[in-house]
Amino acid sequence: MTATLYCFGESGNAYKAALTMALAGYDWTPVWVDFFHGGARRPEFLALNEMGEVPVFVENGLTLTQSAVIQLHVAERRGKLMEGDRDEILRWLFWDNHKGSAQFGTLRFLMNFLPEEKRPAEAIRWLSGRVRAALATLEQHLEGRDWMAGTAPSLADTACCGYLYYPEPFGFERDRFPAISAWLDRIAALPGWKHPYEMMPGNPSDRA
Amino acid sequence: MTATLYCFGESGNAYKAALTMALAGYDWTPVWVDFFHGGARRPEFLALNEMGEVPVFVENGLTLTQSAVIQLHVAERRGKLMEGDRDEILRWLFWDNHKGSAQFGTLRFLMNFLPEEKRPAEAIRWLSGRVRAALATLEQHLEGRDWMAGTAPSLADTACCGYLYYPEPFGFERDRFPAISAWLDRIAALPGWKHPYEMMPGNPSDRA
Repeated sequence: MTATLYCFGESGNAYKAALTMALAGYDWTPVWVDFFHGGARRPEFLALNEMGEVPVFVENGLTLTQSAVIQLHVAERRGKLMEGDRDEILRWLFWDNHKGSAQFGTLRFLMNFLPEEKRPAEAIRWLSGRVRAALATLEQHLEGRDWMAGTAPSLADTACCGYLYYPEPFGFERDRFPAISAWLDRIAALPGWKHPYEMMPGNPSDRA
Repeated sequence: MTATLYCFGESGNAYKAALTMALAGYDWTPVWVDFFHGGARRPEFLALNEMGEVPVFVENGLTLTQSAVIQLHVAERRGKLMEGDRDEILRWLFWDNHKGSAQFGTLRFLMNFLPEEKRPAEAIRWLSGRVRAALATLEQHLEGRDWMAGTAPSLADTACCGYLYYPEPFGFERDRFPAISAWLDRIAALPGWKHPYEMMPGNPSDRA
C-alpha cells in the first residue's frame, strides 16, 4: 500500500511531510499540484482539502491535511521520529506552524514568487523583522544541541527545517546562523534525506 | 493540585488554554504577565519559556508552553474535548496556529495595541487580506455544522475561537460571518464559559 502525497517542490510545508516519510522509510509517491497556475484552488482539489493547501496525504481511503497531522500519522505508524519527550516535540511542531515555517514560507513567497511589481515592500519589511526574531529563537535553541527535541532526530526537526534548505533568499543565510547551519548539515546526513527540489516534482526552473 | 497559567487578558493564545481548562473543569489559577511593559521578555520569564510568549502552564514540576500543547495535556488528563476524530481535531489545531489565531492576533495587535504612529499601514492592509481568507475558510467550514470537528465541542473549538470574542476591531464583525457568530454563541452557552476579559487578569482599560 503506497501513500500518495499531493505536493510541489517549492512547498516547504509539503517537504515537511515528504522528509518525514523519507526518514521514516515510508512507502509513498508524490503527485504534483500545479500551485502556480491555481491547481490548489480547483474544485477537484478543494474536494480533497477545503483549505486549498498542500500537502494532502491519501492512503487506503484515509485523507489527511496539514503537514504536522501527516507527520504525526507517519511517525506513529512507523514508531519513528517521536523518541523522547512528546510534549517537547509537539511544542516545536506548533511553534513551527505559528512562528517558524509559517512566516519563513510566506516571506520567501512574497520576495521570490510574486511578480516583482506586486511585491508589497512595507509588508516584506515588517515580516522580515518577525522572521529575524523566529530565526533567533531557533539559533539560540540549537546552540549546544544536536536536535530540536531530546537527543535524537524527531518530527520537531523535520518540521522546523521545512523552508531552510531552499536557495531563494528570505533573510536566512547560513553563515549568520551557525547553530542552525550545523543542524541542517546533521539532518542532511541522515539516511533518506534529499533536498526538496530532488524529493518532490516541480521547481522554479520549470517556470523560468 | 492547582495548575498555574501565566497569562494576560488580551492574549487570545492564553485564552485558548484558559477556556479549555474552564470547559474541562480543570483546577487552575491565573498569574498575570505584564506583557505591555516587557514582562514576557524578563530573564525570569524567559527561564520559563525561551520563546518569550504566554501562555505558560506549570503544574507539579511540569512546565508546558504553546497553547495547543497545554490544551492537549488538559484534554487528555480530563478525557474531555477530544471526542470524535483525533486527526480532524489536530488538523484544526494546526490550522489555527498557522492561519487562524496566529494572524487574527497579530492583526489585532497591530491595529489596536501599537501606538498609532507606529502602525504599519501597508502591512496591516496586506495582513487584512490574509485574515479575510482565513475567516472565509472558517465561515464555510461552519455552515451547516455545530462544532469545528465532529458532533461535540472539542479542542478545535477552544482553539479557533481564541481571538473572536474580543471587542477590538481587526476585520471580524459578527454580522458579516453568520455561521461563525452562531458557533461563538454555542460555545458561550457551554457551562464554564467566560469572556477572555472575565477569565484572565488584565485588559485594555487598565492601561487607559
